[in-house]
Amino acid sequence: MSTPAPPPTPSHTPAPGCSGARLPGRPRSAAADAAIIEAALRLIEEGATIGELSIEGIAREAGVGKATLYRRWSGKDALMIDVLRSLEEPSPRPDGVSVRDDLVTILELMRRRGLAKRNSALLRTVLTQMHANQKLWRTYDEHVIAARREVLREVLRRGVASGEIRDDLDIDLLADLFTGPMLARAILQEWKALPEGLAESIVDTVLEGVRPRA
Amino acid sequence: MSTPAPPPTPSHTPAPGCSGARLPGRPRSAAADAAIIEAALRLIEEGATIGELSIEGIAREAGVGKATLYRRWSGKDALMIDVLRSLEEPSPRPDGVSVRDDLVTILELMRRRGLAKRNSALLRTVLTQMHANQKLWRTYDEHVIAARREVLREVLRRGVASGEIRDDLDIDLLADLFTGPMLARAILQEWKALPEGLAESIVDTVLEGVRPRA
Repeated sequence: MSTPAPPPTPSHTPAPGCSGARLPGRPRSAAADAAIIEAALRLIEEGATIGELSIEGIAREAGVGKATLYRRWSGKDALMIDVLRSLEEPSPRPDGVSVRDDLVTILELMRRRGLAKRNSALLRTVLTQMHANQKLWRTYDEHVIAARREVLREVLRRGVASGEIRDDLDIDLLADLFTGPMLARAILQEWKALPEGLAESIVDTVLEGVRPRA
Repeated sequence: MSTPAPPPTPSHTPAPGCSGARLPGRPRSAAADAAIIEAALRLIEEGATIGELSIEGIAREAGVGKATLYRRWSGKDALMIDVLRSLEEPSPRPDGVSVRDDLVTILELMRRRGLAKRNSALLRTVLTQMHANQKLWRTYDEHVIAARREVLREVLRRGVASGEIRDDLDIDLLADLFTGPMLARAILQEWKALPEGLAESIVDTVLEGVRPRA
């Protein structure tokens, strides 16, 4: 196993003017959104659990009114999903040339997210607490993870159409065959290495099979 | 997807005479062990978290002295591992005839454990709380899950030796390729079906590969 790559920097870049210090008055639109997300993160960093956070408390910390917050989010769960999203690396579209390379791109992003979680106490805290709340996690899955899965499924369907992937397998099974090994290591066995090249190894071995080819 | 199989019954069979009712006096040896595990389970069922449980409280609930408990377990973590083990289906040894069939046996047991967790509130509570405690989970991993992984590795090594499995792949990678897809579905996406036949589908597809064979 090679040495793990240096941790990717989480993509948590607040809007200009909103980086931590409380804003005077009532910021609006994108700046207000960023200030609200920042406020929630600050409260979590200070030790508040997601269960303890209230819309009132977050609005107060952000220096905005509750109405500003409710114009953008339906409630705390919806806000928490954007809080988590602010800490995660965004998903690039696969470039669509080779199905094999697109699969590597998708798994490599999962590997980098796994490393980011290991290296950011804040990201770990938010993910763990959201995971412990089954309703919130399911909402996150439906809003964020489902879109990532759909990107993967499109790549797999393209592979089936082009003949690069067998046409007799269920798409959900195919998706789990590629992502399961990376998820198992990134999430369930966090003490295991996530070395560079792991995405390529998984993709190529699932494509070729582990039985010797004649 | 076919309908999930009926839930397997958890293998939680207390020793005779220890089924729930508090025992008079001080039971010894196997009976005492079972009474102590039963007592811990009863306290958890009544709403105590693992964090709240104490050796004193469990011994009192079991009607034994603390010394009896410490003769068998070094402390609460070690006891909790046996508490969880008492709720889980034991692992049969694969029969060692066909590597493919042994891999199916191992994955089928994982599928059944996934169904058991979905169907037993008590098992779910214990697993979730243990998982949230990183030190306790790692101890469980080292004492229980590691032995299961070693069984899998032996099967894979046998397959490499017999030529049923390619000899150019890392054993850990091979293990994750087979177990990752089942774990992803059983643990990370609990709302997904765990249909009969899933173990066979995963094993056969990982063996053959998803690229069409010439």
